[in-house]
Amino acid sequence: MDARNLLRFFFLSFTLAIALLLTWLHFPSLPDKAELLDCSTNSGSCTFNFNKRFRLKNPTLIKKPTDLPRRRHESDKPRHPLDPLTVQEVNKVRAILSAHPLFKSTYSINSLVLEEPDKTLVRAWKRGDPLLPRKASVIARVNGVVHLLTVDLTSNQVTRHETAPFSGYPITTVEDMVGALDAPLTNAQFNRTITERGVDMNDVACLPISPGWYGEAEENRRVIKVQCYSRQGTVNFYMRPIEGLTVLVDLDTKQVLSISDKGRNIPIPDGVDTDYRYSVQKLNGVLNLVNPISIEQPKGPSFTIDGHYVKWANWEFHLKPDPRAGAIISQVKVRDPETSELRDVMYKGFVSELFVPYMDPTEGWYFKTYMDAGEYGFGLQAMSLDPLNDCPRNAYYVDAVFASADGTPYVRPNMLCVFESYAGDIAWRHAECPLTDLQVTEVRPKVTLVVRMAAAVANYDYIVDWEFQTDGLIRSKVGLSGILMVKGSKYENMNQAPNEYLYGTLLSENVVGVIHDHYITYRLDMDIDGSDNSFVKVDIKKQETAAGESPRKSYLKAVKNVAKTEKDAQIRLQLYNPSEFHVINPSKKTRVGNSVGYKVVPGPQAASLMDPEDPPQKRGAFTDNQIWVTPYNRSEQWAGGLFVYQSRGDDTLQVWSDRDRPIENKDIVVWYTAGFHHIPCQEDYPIMPTVSSSFDLKPVNFFEKNPILRLPPNFETDLPVCKPPDSA
Amino acid sequence: MDARNLLRFFFLSFTLAIALLLTWLHFPSLPDKAELLDCSTNSGSCTFNFNKRFRLKNPTLIKKPTDLPRRRHESDKPRHPLDPLTVQEVNKVRAILSAHPLFKSTYSINSLVLEEPDKTLVRAWKRGDPLLPRKASVIARVNGVVHLLTVDLTSNQVTRHETAPFSGYPITTVEDMVGALDAPLTNAQFNRTITERGVDMNDVACLPISPGWYGEAEENRRVIKVQCYSRQGTVNFYMRPIEGLTVLVDLDTKQVLSISDKGRNIPIPDGVDTDYRYSVQKLNGVLNLVNPISIEQPKGPSFTIDGHYVKWANWEFHLKPDPRAGAIISQVKVRDPETSELRDVMYKGFVSELFVPYMDPTEGWYFKTYMDAGEYGFGLQAMSLDPLNDCPRNAYYVDAVFASADGTPYVRPNMLCVFESYAGDIAWRHAECPLTDLQVTEVRPKVTLVVRMAAAVANYDYIVDWEFQTDGLIRSKVGLSGILMVKGSKYENMNQAPNEYLYGTLLSENVVGVIHDHYITYRLDMDIDGSDNSFVKVDIKKQETAAGESPRKSYLKAVKNVAKTEKDAQIRLQLYNPSEFHVINPSKKTRVGNSVGYKVVPGPQAASLMDPEDPPQKRGAFTDNQIWVTPYNRSEQWAGGLFVYQSRGDDTLQVWSDRDRPIENKDIVVWYTAGFHHIPCQEDYPIMPTVSSSFDLKPVNFFEKNPILRLPPNFETDLPVCKPPDSA
Repeated sequence: MDARNLLRFFFLSFTLAIALLLTWLHFPSLPDKAELLDCSTNSGSCTFNFNKRFRLKNPTLIKKPTDLPRRRHESDKPRHPLDPLTVQEVNKVRAILSAHPLFKSTYSINSLVLEEPDKTLVRAWKRGDPLLPRKASVIARVNGVVHLLTVDLTSNQVTRHETAPFSGYPITTVEDMVGALDAPLTNAQFNRTITERGVDMNDVACLPISPGWYGEAEENRRVIKVQCYSRQGTVNFYMRPIEGLTVLVDLDTKQVLSISDKGRNIPIPDGVDTDYRYSVQKLNGVLNLVNPISIEQPKGPSFTIDGHYVKWANWEFHLKPDPRAGAIISQVKVRDPETSELRDVMYKGFVSELFVPYMDPTEGWYFKTYMDAGEYGFGLQAMSLDPLNDCPRNAYYVDAVFASADGTPYVRPNMLCVFESYAGDIAWRHAECPLTDLQVTEVRPKVTLVVRMAAAVANYDYIVDWEFQTDGLIRSKVGLSGILMVKGSKYENMNQAPNEYLYGTLLSENVVGVIHDHYITYRLDMDIDGSDNSFVKVDIKKQETAAGESPRKSYLKAVKNVAKTEKDAQIRLQLYNPSEFHVINPSKKTRVGNSVGYKVVPGPQAASLMDPEDPPQKRGAFTDNQIWVTPYNRSEQWAGGLFVYQSRGDDTLQVWSDRDRPIENKDIVVWYTAGFHHIPCQEDYPIMPTVSSSFDLKPVNFFEKNPILRLPPNFETDLPVCKPPDSA
Repeated sequence: MDARNLLRFFFLSFTLAIALLLTWLHFPSLPDKAELLDCSTNSGSCTFNFNKRFRLKNPTLIKKPTDLPRRRHESDKPRHPLDPLTVQEVNKVRAILSAHPLFKSTYSINSLVLEEPDKTLVRAWKRGDPLLPRKASVIARVNGVVHLLTVDLTSNQVTRHETAPFSGYPITTVEDMVGALDAPLTNAQFNRTITERGVDMNDVACLPISPGWYGEAEENRRVIKVQCYSRQGTVNFYMRPIEGLTVLVDLDTKQVLSISDKGRNIPIPDGVDTDYRYSVQKLNGVLNLVNPISIEQPKGPSFTIDGHYVKWANWEFHLKPDPRAGAIISQVKVRDPETSELRDVMYKGFVSELFVPYMDPTEGWYFKTYMDAGEYGFGLQAMSLDPLNDCPRNAYYVDAVFASADGTPYVRPNMLCVFESYAGDIAWRHAECPLTDLQVTEVRPKVTLVVRMAAAVANYDYIVDWEFQTDGLIRSKVGLSGILMVKGSKYENMNQAPNEYLYGTLLSENVVGVIHDHYITYRLDMDIDGSDNSFVKVDIKKQETAAGESPRKSYLKAVKNVAKTEKDAQIRLQLYNPSEFHVINPSKKTRVGNSVGYKVVPGPQAASLMDPEDPPQKRGAFTDNQIWVTPYNRSEQWAGGLFVYQSRGDDTLQVWSDRDRPIENKDIVVWYTAGFHHIPCQEDYPIMPTVSSSFDLKPVNFFEKNPILRLPPNFETDLPVCKPPDSA
């Protein structure tokens, strides 16, 4: 690997895949090693002892050790219609494609994933039934043309073959990125300006930045913008921008199209004390603020994972890694405590798209309006989680199998984790007055199940959690951490620029954190007790009383409005015109006659304020509302469109929704966008403390009564007996 | 105790106090008992071993066991100027008052608390200095007149004596409540209607309900409204309302003034399966969903509590129980990792008032517009916490010393808890691409310190948390649980009332959960590096680009507006007109020239929509804005006024703020109101899963950089070695 191109493999590389496959049998076998320890008496050391760790509560489901989750995947078999393609299946797809005439030319595979069977078939499938026919959905570029193919793994045939109907290009591949980062290095002007700025070429680190789309001049050509940093003295090169230097590269020809070189008067920030690694702090003095703390489960976890199927407490769902969405949860069902019946809540939930526009219109910055899922692959950027820190000690990890640009499968170990969380919170409580004869204090602790992924899209890190509560609530949370995208500045102190607008905050000498927004759009295919549902806006309105009606002048009234068509369900939240947002099953009522439902409960919010005609906002028009509801359409999965890279916004959620199709008593999909305005502050430098937002899916007259009324409290006699490690 | 008056002592009773004091030495001494166990090797059993449990990190602060937190309070001495009055001090105040001519008449003491020394004196006081002179602030009613007194514990004199300048009455006493609940029982009409409704008088449970204020007819007379329930067959009598029966009682004469008896056609709901106690579920089948789970700290907690002074990680603050506010945190300081200096953040923070208007204008409901702190005492209603369930196993508990209506001190054990929480969350992280030579994945776990109180104001339970993060953020969270206030209904199914508005949701046969709001108003006396601060609204505005300036049409710009006077800081949140809300110290800048500050970050919100001229909204006018800022005024502590019971709204935060006093570069106080609209759903029946909201106080250019950059990650070798209890 060329030492001058430290980031040429910035994104996912198939080399990792090959290396992993080749060295498969040479890795120390962690499960085997850990099995020497006895989990039942020594929970702390059992991270890899899956057999005992994943205690199966229902004896009929007990698997032989060979059936239990393992770290080797070459012989994995699919067990559920939604299971992702296995290593063997990806290899088979690759073999089928190799035999296809199209793939005789130079090609790149931009996406190779399971083509999910029809929803009706999946919903009808039961464990024990034969697996539904397996198919792969492939997006490939051949000679500059984007092809959509279906590969049937039963007939070993390509059964569908279309060319792309929309503007934009598919997710970039690692080869694209390597090429983009290589291109400037052979350009004399680039080398000259780097050297003249006093940066050693060995210290140059570059990022490939999606260009957005700004009009016809940028059409019919796949381009990328390359900006560079000095990594001298710190791994945190993001804090040392070579400001004003932007190289436009043709992604297909690998040619440098133009160089914008305007920041020579801007010093490169010195990067002192920006390295965030523990190994470096150890030398400078670690801040040891708190004693070790751990979540411990003396009798083991309460969940089981059979393949990709998770069972925990009163929940069951399918969980799979996806290269574009990250984590996908499907067929989410909750058990009704009254009837013991498993009831449908959501057919599929995932992060459909992200939109991160920066708020600086100047030449080196205006185009930074990332759409991370469709441009880079949100799942592809989710690196292996760090055990004990990304997830607590009691976590179980799920590996991903992805395909590289030539169709070779590779494994991303520990891409997702699943764990039970207990923060000391309360599920419900009531205390009576102690001096009545009702000496009642009843409190139930709150334990949840968390599914986590952490995607590092270049500098930024997104922590995406799905959290399941026993009371039927699902919380979807996204945390932002990682490293700011900063701008070099000639200023060392704000007193040098009393009247100049910097587009952000001066974070350190010569470092400006540029203001930006984050939008994370979730696709939530709700199925409340079946597919045909309605969306009900329950408006909370001031009602004035009539003269003489009451000593009160006013009260709040709940008024239900069933959305007939999509435009009825384009929701902008208003604090002084509030509503609840219910998804109900109009055909099913509770015993006392309320429609069963779930409500979408927004969390803290920010809304996009950009001009709707601004090109980035047209592409990111799925953020125009916080909530949308569309009729189920298999092809409408990605809020920013199937092809997002350089897209013009002709295939977004906004376009679909504006068709205003009927949505009453239909299979409907809810879209929720979480937003953040981020004005950076010095505390975000050189690495950001996590900031979070969340929203809830909450049962509303779904259950006949509180579903966790019969939950027991904690008892001291159930809790573990623990010792510090040094006394063990 | 008369068996027919089961709830006559519904609120805090001095009998408990006396009983506790008398039986003091006869209680099993839990600390002594637990000290037999060795905490250092057996953390799980050491709940009461305070000595070893509260490991003191700084050797100079190590106390002898007798100085450490104990469960006996009769010899407690104050150690800090803000420490609450001790048992001895309350007794002394009582003795001084007994000798005062005013108290020769029949009197009731409605409030007896420390009169905090002047802020300047407290701020100047250092550990080791002589304690500042101790004074008590007393509110007493004598012959129908409210008196405000200051009792000097040095001179043993009453040094201030005024009568109340405002409308309204002080917090009700338990004697008030007992009298109110007794009154109807001697009324023949009341007895007759109860019997005629088929309820055995032995099964009647009544609630004393504050009447609000609705015009002149209700002035100059202290009244209360009594409504009753059948407790036959369930401890959850709240679910069995005797609808339509309201008794108006004069609180001073104990006379029944009138009886409204209109609900005879409404059946009393049967209350079947509404009992939520574990003991009852045990018979019906417990829902055992998850295995035991616990937060364990092998090396003990990381905090110390010296008297009422808490030190944890980089935080120090004073914590005290208060009968009206619940928990008060004072002198909150955070240590700067760069300079090791302890820096002021907040002088005082607490829940100042609550406002809970119900949305039913009919005769039995219109007046239900509770202001729980000023009417009932939010702290007085905070019963002892349930160890292991209200707080996790690793919690430390703080007792309260309160005064009863005759001035006798009593102890509320375990009123507050303090614990470290770890939910598996991430303080910060970044992962680099593994195939660069930057093989970096650095993640830091997030551990917080939680201070908790749970107040059960009759049916509703409020869980109030202050959560401290090592990154300088303070999260203030309120959780709502407990039991709904429900209305009896003649309907058993919604199909019986297709077009009738029920003012809420039919939760079960004959039970309607009435729609209501909750507002919790916090008083936050921010002191950012000293008292003189400014409030800055950082508006986030759309800025259009000029023609030819950029391919972008628009971007968001941050525009700072310093609030000059109070009206500049009356904030109604708007999603499409957003701002950040900074409290800055205009005299102190960071190295690069930003003003040091903290920002108030609102959480999920609801705003009051009632008519501003509606009597409850006039009294609750402190909820008219989500944020207010006032100049520091020692007398402006209670957002709804010093005297809230039957107040007319002439002493609220809204009245103070409308004076529009200067607030720039002054000692300022921020007021934040968290709001909830609650449309009940069947899941809230018969007891509600907790619903939460929160807001954050977040450093913004307060630190030079991320203050937890140098935090270490978790290591397996630091974590505990645990066994299930049965194998111990």
